[in-house]
Amino acid sequence: MALLSVLTPVLAVVLCVVIGFMLVRSRETETTATTSPGETEGAPKADFRPWVDQDLQDGTETKGKDDEDGDWMDSNEEEDILHVPYSPPGYPVETMLERSKDFYTLMNQRRSVRFISPEPVPREVINNAIRTAGTAPSGAHTEPWTFVVVSDPETKHQIRRIVEEEEEINYRQRMGDKWVQDLSRFRTSWIKEYLDVAPYLILVFKQIYGSLPNGKKRTHYYNEISVSISCGLLLAALQNVGLVTVTSTPLNCGPQLRLLLKRPANEKLLMLLPVGYPACEATVPDLKRKPLDGIVVHI
Amino acid sequence: MALLSVLTPVLAVVLCVVIGFMLVRSRETETTATTSPGETEGAPKADFRPWVDQDLQDGTETKGKDDEDGDWMDSNEEEDILHVPYSPPGYPVETMLERSKDFYTLMNQRRSVRFISPEPVPREVINNAIRTAGTAPSGAHTEPWTFVVVSDPETKHQIRRIVEEEEEINYRQRMGDKWVQDLSRFRTSWIKEYLDVAPYLILVFKQIYGSLPNGKKRTHYYNEISVSISCGLLLAALQNVGLVTVTSTPLNCGPQLRLLLKRPANEKLLMLLPVGYPACEATVPDLKRKPLDGIVVHI
Repeated sequence: MALLSVLTPVLAVVLCVVIGFMLVRSRETETTATTSPGETEGAPKADFRPWVDQDLQDGTETKGKDDEDGDWMDSNEEEDILHVPYSPPGYPVETMLERSKDFYTLMNQRRSVRFISPEPVPREVINNAIRTAGTAPSGAHTEPWTFVVVSDPETKHQIRRIVEEEEEINYRQRMGDKWVQDLSRFRTSWIKEYLDVAPYLILVFKQIYGSLPNGKKRTHYYNEISVSISCGLLLAALQNVGLVTVTSTPLNCGPQLRLLLKRPANEKLLMLLPVGYPACEATVPDLKRKPLDGIVVHI
Repeated sequence: MALLSVLTPVLAVVLCVVIGFMLVRSRETETTATTSPGETEGAPKADFRPWVDQDLQDGTETKGKDDEDGDWMDSNEEEDILHVPYSPPGYPVETMLERSKDFYTLMNQRRSVRFISPEPVPREVINNAIRTAGTAPSGAHTEPWTFVVVSDPETKHQIRRIVEEEEEINYRQRMGDKWVQDLSRFRTSWIKEYLDVAPYLILVFKQIYGSLPNGKKRTHYYNEISVSISCGLLLAALQNVGLVTVTSTPLNCGPQLRLLLKRPANEKLLMLLPVGYPACEATVPDLKRKPLDGIVVHI
């Protein structure tokens, strides 16, 4: 009985400890349960994207802040830059209306064209189009673009080989049985004759970082938006001289093409544009564009 | 003594409990310390970017695959779309050279301008510029853009209030002591008078997804690249009629501005462009652009 009276409180305490420990453990498990989804579902949901070109999954294309406010040219560096008066030529209202209409008409004739003539195009025309692309605004005026213009037939062919090889893998993996059933039907989609035929291939690289005077890397925020805007100007410039192209983003070819073209590690392929005159037999899908009231809201 | 012998094991157990509990607690704290950085530093390394607009951290702007190959218009849907001949007007080589040079000269005069005149601009000119932007190519021809044109003074002022409020927070948090030391020096950077003054504010939204006929969401791959290209065309169209703007990406204002402008949840603010004639006293930083050989490589 004395022994029992000695043990009773001990047992009670041990019981309390066990219960307490179990409670703590269950709380711990809960904590793990609420944090790990954050790592295996949350982050992943953002990171696991099988359709994304691996070369582009570097997290650098996220929009960043290039300066204290959101204006692209307001970087602190500019505080020391001399400001100069700016008075571009103006037009009377009637002329503005006419010019705006004419420019729209011209741009509205642009289509993505895959049937490109091998007919040579003066290099200076291409250079002027690229000069035009280079007038685009960019985050903190970093001008994070490199335009690689390929006219050498051998290099064009190597590019075609790389692109078609990757495309074939993409097709076969995606199409599976359908592919085997009717290979020929899809053949035209990954065979890219225009990569050999077009007089120029313009490969647009975005520079995801630059280097500071001290040798350190300088992240180029907004580099993808900036380079895409510059591509918009490039498309306008090409259309303005009667040349055609097709906006393509070859999947998973970036690293190989970068090595082929000997571009540095800070450059990533954003787009590949075959450029030339349209072929005589060129066709385009009979697509319509949204009307103005489908894309604009006035307030 | 008997009492002591009864209490000794009890005391020992209590001591063990206390020690055990403290150990468990410390482990818990450790767990918290290693998981919460996963929220404030680790994932953060990828996700915590104070300079990134929170509204844009949705992972949707990652380049995706819109169709089997990288050509933006080659979607399977198009297999059933009629193809039509395409023969745009061509120009003699001399004319091409001239046009390419003239267009470059015109675009090269474009600058980001923050001093905008309140002088009214015909709405049709703005509409034509947006029509032009709407001719941009887009992944699978999704045309994932909405241009909200604000000319209502009250709405413009509310936009200014939202943008300046956020900018002030950004500034104060970033500048810290420096801010206190010399607040007035930076004042001009977050005070954005042009948001009241410019006759139009164009807020460019990217549609990160659309809806399928069955009501399900349809991801708009490449939506950010597409909308940025379309902004390039918009800049060209505005420059072509003698209007000015500044490419801005207001930090963390997206959600508030989206609600203010009553845009649906699938639209995210990409850019805000104040548009008008340049003010008489307009100045721009005396920046130079890279020469052609700094942005092009011929192979």
